[in-house]
Amino acid sequence: MSLETTARLLITCPDKPGIVAAVTGFLYSHNVNINTLDQHSSDPEGGNFFMRLEFQTPHLDISKPALEKAFGEVVAPRFDMHWRIHYAWERKKMAILVSRWDHCLLELLWRWSRGELHCDISMVISNHPDLREAVESFGVPFHHIPIIKENRHEADQAMLKLLDGQADFVVLARYMQILPKEFVAPYSRRIINIHHSFLPAFIGADPYRQAYERGVKIIGATAHYVTEELDAGPIIEQDVARVSHRYNIEALKDLGRDLERQVLARAVRCHVDDRIIVDGNKTVVF
Amino acid sequence: MSLETTARLLITCPDKPGIVAAVTGFLYSHNVNINTLDQHSSDPEGGNFFMRLEFQTPHLDISKPALEKAFGEVVAPRFDMHWRIHYAWERKKMAILVSRWDHCLLELLWRWSRGELHCDISMVISNHPDLREAVESFGVPFHHIPIIKENRHEADQAMLKLLDGQADFVVLARYMQILPKEFVAPYSRRIINIHHSFLPAFIGADPYRQAYERGVKIIGATAHYVTEELDAGPIIEQDVARVSHRYNIEALKDLGRDLERQVLARAVRCHVDDRIIVDGNKTVVF
Amino acid sequence: MSLETTARLLITCPDKPGIVAAVTGFLYSHNVNINTLDQHSSDPEGGNFFMRLEFQTPHLDISKPALEKAFGEVVAPRFDMHWRIHYAWERKKMAILVSRWDHCLLELLWRWSRGELHCDISMVISNHPDLREAVESFGVPFHHIPIIKENRHEADQAMLKLLDGQADFVVLARYMQILPKEFVAPYSRRIINIHHSFLPAFIGADPYRQAYERGVKIIGATAHYVTEELDAGPIIEQDVARVSHRYNIEALKDLGRDLERQVLARAVRCHVDDRIIVDGNKTVVF
Amino acid sequence: MSLETTARLLITCPDKPGIVAAVTGFLYSHNVNINTLDQHSSDPEGGNFFMRLEFQTPHLDISKPALEKAFGEVVAPRFDMHWRIHYAWERKKMAILVSRWDHCLLELLWRWSRGELHCDISMVISNHPDLREAVESFGVPFHHIPIIKENRHEADQAMLKLLDGQADFVVLARYMQILPKEFVAPYSRRIINIHHSFLPAFIGADPYRQAYERGVKIIGATAHYVTEELDAGPIIEQDVARVSHRYNIEALKDLGRDLERQVLARAVRCHVDDRIIVDGNKTVVF
Repeated sequence: MSLETTARLLITCPDKPGIVAAVTGFLYSHNVNINTLDQHSSDPEGGNFFMRLEFQTPHLDISKPALEKAFGEVVAPRFDMHWRIHYAWERKKMAILVSRWDHCLLELLWRWSRGELHCDISMVISNHPDLREAVESFGVPFHHIPIIKENRHEADQAMLKLLDGQADFVVLARYMQILPKEFVAPYSRRIINIHHSFLPAFIGADPYRQAYERGVKIIGATAHYVTEELDAGPIIEQDVARVSHRYNIEALKDLGRDLERQVLARAVRCHVDDRIIVDGNKTVVF
Repeated sequence: MSLETTARLLITCPDKPGIVAAVTGFLYSHNVNINTLDQHSSDPEGGNFFMRLEFQTPHLDISKPALEKAFGEVVAPRFDMHWRIHYAWERKKMAILVSRWDHCLLELLWRWSRGELHCDISMVISNHPDLREAVESFGVPFHHIPIIKENRHEADQAMLKLLDGQADFVVLARYMQILPKEFVAPYSRRIINIHHSFLPAFIGADPYRQAYERGVKIIGATAHYVTEELDAGPIIEQDVARVSHRYNIEALKDLGRDLERQVLARAVRCHVDDRIIVDGNKTVVF
Repeated sequence: MSLETTARLLITCPDKPGIVAAVTGFLYSHNVNINTLDQHSSDPEGGNFFMRLEFQTPHLDISKPALEKAFGEVVAPRFDMHWRIHYAWERKKMAILVSRWDHCLLELLWRWSRGELHCDISMVISNHPDLREAVESFGVPFHHIPIIKENRHEADQAMLKLLDGQADFVVLARYMQILPKEFVAPYSRRIINIHHSFLPAFIGADPYRQAYERGVKIIGATAHYVTEELDAGPIIEQDVARVSHRYNIEALKDLGRDLERQVLARAVRCHVDDRIIVDGNKTVVF
Repeated sequence: MSLETTARLLITCPDKPGIVAAVTGFLYSHNVNINTLDQHSSDPEGGNFFMRLEFQTPHLDISKPALEKAFGEVVAPRFDMHWRIHYAWERKKMAILVSRWDHCLLELLWRWSRGELHCDISMVISNHPDLREAVESFGVPFHHIPIIKENRHEADQAMLKLLDGQADFVVLARYMQILPKEFVAPYSRRIINIHHSFLPAFIGADPYRQAYERGVKIIGATAHYVTEELDAGPIIEQDVARVSHRYNIEALKDLGRDLERQVLARAVRCHVDDRIIVDGNKTVVF
């Protein structure tokens, strides 16, 4: 199953009988070999239907544009589908925004450099200069765009300009600035943030302090798509670790860093591999 | 999705293109509504293909026997399928074998009595009389068949006679006797055992003592189908818990009991819901 | 280490040098054998110090009252200690309040009946009559005190009267009524509730629905001491389980019940074994 | 609690009354402030007693050598103690042996470079040249010592020579050669290996393949001290991750790498912080 011949079809539509038969029959008729099929119905009566197919195209009997055209004309309208085919060999461009903490950034760079993330990293942008050397040692361009109260708007515009055409999606790898609406809107469902708590607990600033003060026995980390509302977007992945009264805030942060790295890396991998379908404010992760 | 109209089709066959299209197309043509479809290929090139479909039959356009006949004649031979349709309203009969420890037995009886296990419990058999009252309070027949060295064969025969026609599957809920080949054979892939270790570690007797002496930092429990080789059958479910040097053998057993209960209950539920396909010495659990 | 000779000394005091030496020296001088010692300092500079010692009294050279008197006069004042000695053979009396869900109640009764909880259960009180038979089969008195809007005050008073002198602590095993201030106050730090979410997420009613609607990937349960503020008391124990988009609300509740049972049972066991020291709105659990 | 003033006393001795009182009384008399005390008894009747104290020395009333001398003459003999005081400011020298896989190595270098491991890394030795650049970019010396069948003895001797005086402990970060007895002996209880399975399951070569073939539902990783017997030394730390039939061997290895990194890093941190006391073939990890 080479990435060079792997395509993924993502579908969302109202649930009704016959969808799987129609889609798989269509693909089979074009000599496509399905290697993974996942489907989910939020409710068989009046709910939404979600499907992800991963298939191989070496024996496809028509061109890819012709396949997409045929699917769009023959199958999709019958079921009122939102759909898209992603080709694994069209590597997504990822841009990473980061502030001073390097652990999430390095985890992504490291996994990427060893081939675990099948995407390109077009750039890293930071509001601090500290991580330039670490980033450039991976052969990735680094841009320092300082942010102060007075230049916030200009800084955001400068970032948007850098990203323009160079980012299929954006990862906030512990980026400690809040992105304005005009930044989020064009990248809707394409900005992934790591929040250092088990959302929806401890929204906002300094969640480890909040966790410490509440005296929880488990801490967590949450990767989610960014929406206009702070820390409220669709959750992609979460994980937790057990703590006790022995953990002061520094110890929570230490342990939490390991969670953040793992959770963000898994979420990014799911996004890169086209495993996520957003369903309102929730995600279906196949 | 009432159990009264729910059916499940389990398929194993060599992987090749067109299986999903053929199966779903067939079912759709008979007005069957698929509500869950899971499939797995051990290897797209020359591997085995496994599929589980859960579907609803209220609008089926032919009788169930006719559906099975048609599937067996039209679809199955094309792909050299092993297949079977289970109807959820044909409740499986479960028999439980137990010795003295009651925790796994009670967990099953309890979940069953509150409707979490969609099966009937036809009997509990024990080589000790101790648990009669507990079992009968759930309205379940209890049979005491003592086992001593001299009567082992007679005891096994007596159990087989009790089970005959009364057990679609057998659960060993901490049954501390080894079942002979002539007992296991007729219930191939239909006897579920709970072993109180993380198999394949600590096969055989007194696994908590073995775990204690090895100084592991995590203990486990394993539910598996019984084969002739001790503790070597296909694993259905496992779970683990963290321990430390502070756990003596009694403490390991205490904690382990909670694991055993959960793991066995989950495995039994998967079996009852027709979620398990055995693949050689492994399981596919959808 | 028989429970008949086991005592536990719990201490809270400002941290300063010499506490451990003074306490262990005192106990040693009276022929007490310490078998467990746990200590914790919230901050060596100006923080609080917490200690739990479990010791054996068979060779104690004075009477227990004399030991307590001497400790209170000789050691405690030097360090401004809050302290208490619990004797394991003075079994605590537990009262359980429950509504209709039986899983937490049965888990406690069951563990208690097999000797895992070293306490007495003096009664179960419910605002519904449904669970009488289940409770009485364990030999535990059951009281049905219906609650309607108009009699809420009388009902609470009736419960308080039943509990009077008969309950060292109270467990809310999915008791779906909010207890008024005059109920909580006399049992300060002695009422344990199980909340069916990972607090502080999803405070209040129907947390599984809240979790479903937020689209979390992990659910949890929390045992805590009850305070006047809803679901805001000191957390004793939490646990979590991984879920996915495939879990509807019913499936979350099913899985959650297993969490609730385990978490509440562990919290009650810690309370019974005098392992918990409350520190403001947090707990130290040794 | 600066590392500059932090010392740790580790004690093993036969359990008998009065140990804690004697040790803490001694330290208190010399103006030492204990900030952590952990103790464990394998059996109060005839078992072994283990204790770890972390204390602060700024107000120590005598020199450190004098303190050690006094403890060795006054306290230790009374209880037949094995004991040692470690001073946190005497940073241990760690040498890392690695083959081709870089993930465990990089995890250690990375945590070390950000100050999470309070030790020095004196060198990395590999039987392959591939990782030189990665290692040297952290400012750590890299030695390539090729191993072929014919030079195995010479290679081991060359490594021992490099390590001589330069390594307080050795970490095998996926080092795929078996160390001979003459290598292991001088570093008894000071060589930490990461084994890529949940020991004692899947000892020896290719444990992920073994796990795949056994069809386990959970995989693990184990950090342990190396002894002469392969994969049989005292276990320091383990962790696990849930898998399913969907994981082929490559996917197990992918997931396993994340486990290996975390488990090895935690074990090394415990060793560096003097948290481990070896007890026969087991560990006490405070």
